[in-house]
Amino acid sequence: MDPRAQEIDRCLKAGTLPESFEVAGPRNPVFFDPGKVTAAIVTCGGLCPGLNAVIRSIVLQLQHRYGVRKILGIRYGYQGLARNAHETPLSLSAEVVEDIHVRGGSILGSSRGAPAASEMLDSLVRMGVDMLFTIGGDGTMRGALAIHDEIKRRKLPIAVVGIPKTIDNDIPFVRRSFGFETAVHIACEAVHAAYTEAVGVENGIGLVKLMGRESGYIAANAALATGHVDFCLVPEVGFKIEGPDGLYELLRERLRRRKHALILAAEGAGQDYFARAERPRDASGNVKLGDIGTLLKERLPHLFQQDSIPVSIKYIDPSYIIRAAAANPADQVFCNRMAQYAVHAAMAGKTGLLVGYWHGRMTHVPLRALGSEKQRINPDGELWQNVLETTGQPPAIG
Amino acid sequence: MDPRAQEIDRCLKAGTLPESFEVAGPRNPVFFDPGKVTAAIVTCGGLCPGLNAVIRSIVLQLQHRYGVRKILGIRYGYQGLARNAHETPLSLSAEVVEDIHVRGGSILGSSRGAPAASEMLDSLVRMGVDMLFTIGGDGTMRGALAIHDEIKRRKLPIAVVGIPKTIDNDIPFVRRSFGFETAVHIACEAVHAAYTEAVGVENGIGLVKLMGRESGYIAANAALATGHVDFCLVPEVGFKIEGPDGLYELLRERLRRRKHALILAAEGAGQDYFARAERPRDASGNVKLGDIGTLLKERLPHLFQQDSIPVSIKYIDPSYIIRAAAANPADQVFCNRMAQYAVHAAMAGKTGLLVGYWHGRMTHVPLRALGSEKQRINPDGELWQNVLETTGQPPAIG
Amino acid sequence: MDPRAQEIDRCLKAGTLPESFEVAGPRNPVFFDPGKVTAAIVTCGGLCPGLNAVIRSIVLQLQHRYGVRKILGIRYGYQGLARNAHETPLSLSAEVVEDIHVRGGSILGSSRGAPAASEMLDSLVRMGVDMLFTIGGDGTMRGALAIHDEIKRRKLPIAVVGIPKTIDNDIPFVRRSFGFETAVHIACEAVHAAYTEAVGVENGIGLVKLMGRESGYIAANAALATGHVDFCLVPEVGFKIEGPDGLYELLRERLRRRKHALILAAEGAGQDYFARAERPRDASGNVKLGDIGTLLKERLPHLFQQDSIPVSIKYIDPSYIIRAAAANPADQVFCNRMAQYAVHAAMAGKTGLLVGYWHGRMTHVPLRALGSEKQRINPDGELWQNVLETTGQPPAIG
Amino acid sequence: MDPRAQEIDRCLKAGTLPESFEVAGPRNPVFFDPGKVTAAIVTCGGLCPGLNAVIRSIVLQLQHRYGVRKILGIRYGYQGLARNAHETPLSLSAEVVEDIHVRGGSILGSSRGAPAASEMLDSLVRMGVDMLFTIGGDGTMRGALAIHDEIKRRKLPIAVVGIPKTIDNDIPFVRRSFGFETAVHIACEAVHAAYTEAVGVENGIGLVKLMGRESGYIAANAALATGHVDFCLVPEVGFKIEGPDGLYELLRERLRRRKHALILAAEGAGQDYFARAERPRDASGNVKLGDIGTLLKERLPHLFQQDSIPVSIKYIDPSYIIRAAAANPADQVFCNRMAQYAVHAAMAGKTGLLVGYWHGRMTHVPLRALGSEKQRINPDGELWQNVLETTGQPPAIG
Repeated sequence: MDPRAQEIDRCLKAGTLPESFEVAGPRNPVFFDPGKVTAAIVTCGGLCPGLNAVIRSIVLQLQHRYGVRKILGIRYGYQGLARNAHETPLSLSAEVVEDIHVRGGSILGSSRGAPAASEMLDSLVRMGVDMLFTIGGDGTMRGALAIHDEIKRRKLPIAVVGIPKTIDNDIPFVRRSFGFETAVHIACEAVHAAYTEAVGVENGIGLVKLMGRESGYIAANAALATGHVDFCLVPEVGFKIEGPDGLYELLRERLRRRKHALILAAEGAGQDYFARAERPRDASGNVKLGDIGTLLKERLPHLFQQDSIPVSIKYIDPSYIIRAAAANPADQVFCNRMAQYAVHAAMAGKTGLLVGYWHGRMTHVPLRALGSEKQRINPDGELWQNVLETTGQPPAIG
Repeated sequence: MDPRAQEIDRCLKAGTLPESFEVAGPRNPVFFDPGKVTAAIVTCGGLCPGLNAVIRSIVLQLQHRYGVRKILGIRYGYQGLARNAHETPLSLSAEVVEDIHVRGGSILGSSRGAPAASEMLDSLVRMGVDMLFTIGGDGTMRGALAIHDEIKRRKLPIAVVGIPKTIDNDIPFVRRSFGFETAVHIACEAVHAAYTEAVGVENGIGLVKLMGRESGYIAANAALATGHVDFCLVPEVGFKIEGPDGLYELLRERLRRRKHALILAAEGAGQDYFARAERPRDASGNVKLGDIGTLLKERLPHLFQQDSIPVSIKYIDPSYIIRAAAANPADQVFCNRMAQYAVHAAMAGKTGLLVGYWHGRMTHVPLRALGSEKQRINPDGELWQNVLETTGQPPAIG
Repeated sequence: MDPRAQEIDRCLKAGTLPESFEVAGPRNPVFFDPGKVTAAIVTCGGLCPGLNAVIRSIVLQLQHRYGVRKILGIRYGYQGLARNAHETPLSLSAEVVEDIHVRGGSILGSSRGAPAASEMLDSLVRMGVDMLFTIGGDGTMRGALAIHDEIKRRKLPIAVVGIPKTIDNDIPFVRRSFGFETAVHIACEAVHAAYTEAVGVENGIGLVKLMGRESGYIAANAALATGHVDFCLVPEVGFKIEGPDGLYELLRERLRRRKHALILAAEGAGQDYFARAERPRDASGNVKLGDIGTLLKERLPHLFQQDSIPVSIKYIDPSYIIRAAAANPADQVFCNRMAQYAVHAAMAGKTGLLVGYWHGRMTHVPLRALGSEKQRINPDGELWQNVLETTGQPPAIG
Repeated sequence: MDPRAQEIDRCLKAGTLPESFEVAGPRNPVFFDPGKVTAAIVTCGGLCPGLNAVIRSIVLQLQHRYGVRKILGIRYGYQGLARNAHETPLSLSAEVVEDIHVRGGSILGSSRGAPAASEMLDSLVRMGVDMLFTIGGDGTMRGALAIHDEIKRRKLPIAVVGIPKTIDNDIPFVRRSFGFETAVHIACEAVHAAYTEAVGVENGIGLVKLMGRESGYIAANAALATGHVDFCLVPEVGFKIEGPDGLYELLRERLRRRKHALILAAEGAGQDYFARAERPRDASGNVKLGDIGTLLKERLPHLFQQDSIPVSIKYIDPSYIIRAAAANPADQVFCNRMAQYAVHAAMAGKTGLLVGYWHGRMTHVPLRALGSEKQRINPDGELWQNVLETTGQPPAIG
């Protein structure tokens, strides 16, 4: 482990800012000549609220603040940088992006996976691109780093700046990621619906599956926000369905007392119930998770039936509705600021970095600093204690 | 067929109001003594936006307009009238219902199925109920009729008044049912999400399943309202998936031209694809439908794969979120008016009827007039023609 | 009065459809050659939810159903047809209007007033327009009729088809106008806020002014929908502030019993309190109304102060927020259908008409049939009786 | 200045946490016997999103976490602690507060001003209150401190814990206050409406006045979130209307180029335009501000008229709609956490403090530490720089 990696590792554990990170902001002098610059923007991976807001703010900042006139919107993610991409880039301007931020999705489209870095760089060079803004998650940032390394190898003056996208809020050095609050907001509507269904029948059980592959932030916040959740299941805290203190027994007791119950499960919760071997990977390289929602939806009624207790379970999976939502105002603010700093960085000739938000400051995080680690809920920390107090569930289930 | 049934049948076909139906409204003299009346309200079947609004308006009208003080809220549907019901009725008043209309669900809870009419009437007599307001669908109205017949047999002075609930908008003599507009409203949000997902990737297909067992009104209106739907599949119009003019071929052509497509399927569409014999009934006596959403979600990608066309299908089933929504203002108005007329009818001693909305007027529809027929979309009528013009789909698919 | 005018007058009173009106719908043969047609769309008067939805559906219907390729969007209302208009028309297509319906306002802009009919026709001829779709209220339809008459005088083959816009829902032969339900929807949010403010303090009075110059439909429906209004004041029913049964005394009694009260006033209510002579007209020719909201906001606390009763009045005027809202799904459906029929009419060579909705059918209403009469609430009809039952206010105030 | 005050002053300037502040959280042992405790909650001052959420979480935490059974809800603010208060306290429990958090306002009601501290303490003693939770702004916290001092004088074992409420986000040591994000959210809807109105006519000017007596956080965030604002006016940055670089000239230039403009003014902006002497104080002791919204609404059109430039100005003041909104999910989370820590503090016998959020931690802030200083936007800081970049307005106007 080189000294820099050691420093980053130490800071991640201590919750402090590595000295090798810079505070983000405008720089003098500007490296690129705005009148000659060609910028490009690409959005990758699954949809997330705020993509259009980030695109819009990058375009407005480039055009209005720096006077850049040539901005390309790469279609359908990194696939739009393939040698034989089907679609030519969009030409972006203040006029084109005027109202896009109030709509969900990405006007550029997205995709998973990526061509080889050298192939993508060939496309960028062919398009005359001087700076590339990549918006996406882990895999996207690894792709950006690969392009950046290839640029260095070829000694080209092209800047690569990442804007981290993770609806799960799980990227280190990014305290809060854009789209996260909107995701919680929409998730709460699904939780309210499940609660309404649960109290609407005798022994009604509402079950909602939310995003959160390795980190249960959305579920934890939805539990805190709605105040209706009885069991919040997250990847960071294991649980057992059966056994004396397992979910089923707790649920049975809850129904006996209150006639209804509400379970919230992050998609990455309870993965012990699935054989690791069976799981393939998607085009982004993510392991496909076992479907904890469907497992609970089937297993729990089965257990109640064995005990001759009539229950009615209503299962809601709002994932696509959440992903496709437009950013709420708090996320709009955040997207706007992230984009402004990304443009400052690129125009100053900074490269190989992503814009992070850490300890209340916008910072430049070297792409290389991103390892495979995730930001996760600390089961002994404030957030999870607040969740336990709100749901009334025991610290350990089963 | 007796003359009255013949008249009703004729009117249903001609779209006119049977003479045996009365216009709803206040009556003089009032039959019951408000100071001595005990009223009861019961909500049955699946959740539907507006249940709480109807409950609230019945209570306010009884208490403020007529001075009735004793109002019982039967818990969990007709099951709350079982001999051994677990829960005692709620005591309802203006204070209790003050703010309930802005919340979804039913504060009384609901259930499917019913004890025997004589058992339910025994419970009503035991509770001292003089008038029963039943809010529910077909099955609920059949139950209300059975109670009404038993009341007549025993010669008791108890009024039974129904308020028809059908999120599918499929009850004859009820041009528009409460909750329907709200259902369309929430459905449109899911359709917008599916559209956003579809345009967000190359060859993206959005697929939304909406309520509509025998009538596709919600799907048809959501198609008209969003203006984004390419194929609207409803129970009233058959379709084929494969074959030269089938859904798959049309979809392939659409993707070729536009790179994305959006399919809306009412749950009762395409039932020919399921063997009738396999289908059990739920507690309300409804045949369980084959799951057209899941069938399309699996069959369509399979067909594209055979032709080596990469597609990405995103499937959304927003049913529970729709059912659990609070009524929107248009439905609040409608619920309020339905409830006011139901109370007028009961206080005037009218019984064995439901409050309908037909030809722009609130009317009294004899419970006996409700047969097994459904109100359905006319494939040659204005509504469906508007849908065809909006989606651009051919009149016959396959 | 000529026989046709007599027939219309008779039908308006009887609530029937004049025989001189046609049912709307597609016609054979089509009069215009779609490949050669130039269509134009203009939006006039104040903003109203649904303008963009109507524009979008006209464009899609012209382009997709009939194959029309040349569609002009006149900028800023009839002023865009002035000889020296500042802005050239927009070129409209399916691509341009793809997502506009989910936004409020009009992408074309609007204005009040109009140049002379002959000047506007000169502009239409210069632009090569074959059919003009005018979206607006009374004044706009009078302008359309003037253009239509000038076209006839010059014997030109140009069709003029109106789509009536009136957020107040006050145009005869148009049972319900687009944007009305959305207006009620947004109005209800303001009423809920006023209710929350009123109950939030001792002797709190919420006061909301809503649109409704001559017809109180928005206020009446908001009162029915929210169920929180104690006094609904509309232009159709006079009221007095002072005197033994006046608003002040009723309000005082209400506060004594309940500690809070909620007043809803349509802007045209209580105009007797303003001297007619003082009122100028706006650019649309409408008499400027006295501001009943401000009058009540000032007069009522003054009266309470005289009686040494401390009250807190919170006044909300949500008009611009209502006008600028995007159409809700029910209005989207309606806008879509109105636009489809307008295009059918124009393509069939029909002219000098507006598309109406009367007795459950889309109809063609001759522009000439529109007099100065308004559709108004009948104080003895069902709607107002429902309002009285819901608010509990007496039929006559003061 | 005593050493503690000096430390606080130093920390406020340096943005660090005074050592005299404690981190909030559960404590051992618990000071009060939960079975014997009587708690009381009071809400004071103007409405703010989240009041009901805070009330609910205090009740649930007291009852479920600590087993407290007797919880009083004081009616109508500190006035409910007057000797002759009209209303007796509500008895609060988990059942009563079950669904209140999804509604705006305060179920307890509120008021401005306060009786003498000794009179309020007499009432608390008479009610047998052991711990008082006060939710309110500056004035409320001063009242809480006065009660706390009187308690110490009488040597009574009564805890006083404050939860700071400031929709303007202007309380020191409280980085973000509850209701603030919701306020921005609803404000953005008004800003979108004003934008729609502005672009809907030629030379349209949208003008929105938002809360912000001394700090323009709501306006600044709404400008960042909507991305449509051209001029954001806040109390922290002066401006001139006339003169060569004044608002009018900038606005005229903007209209010339773009035909529309949008102005956002915090209510405390531009107070130099009002004579200080004329301003009375309200019952909370706040100086009544000059109405900058009305001033701009009248002055700007007048200036344009002098230059014969026709403009159309649309003015929206959404304050009551914002105040009365229910908390959004992000604020629900925050209210929930604030309430949990307030209860921990009180049960541990901590008193004379408020719960703050500072440097990412919940803390105990001594009530005595709150001076008259406000948290305000730093015109040289990141936030305001982001606003300038987003609006494009110059750092100094006029």
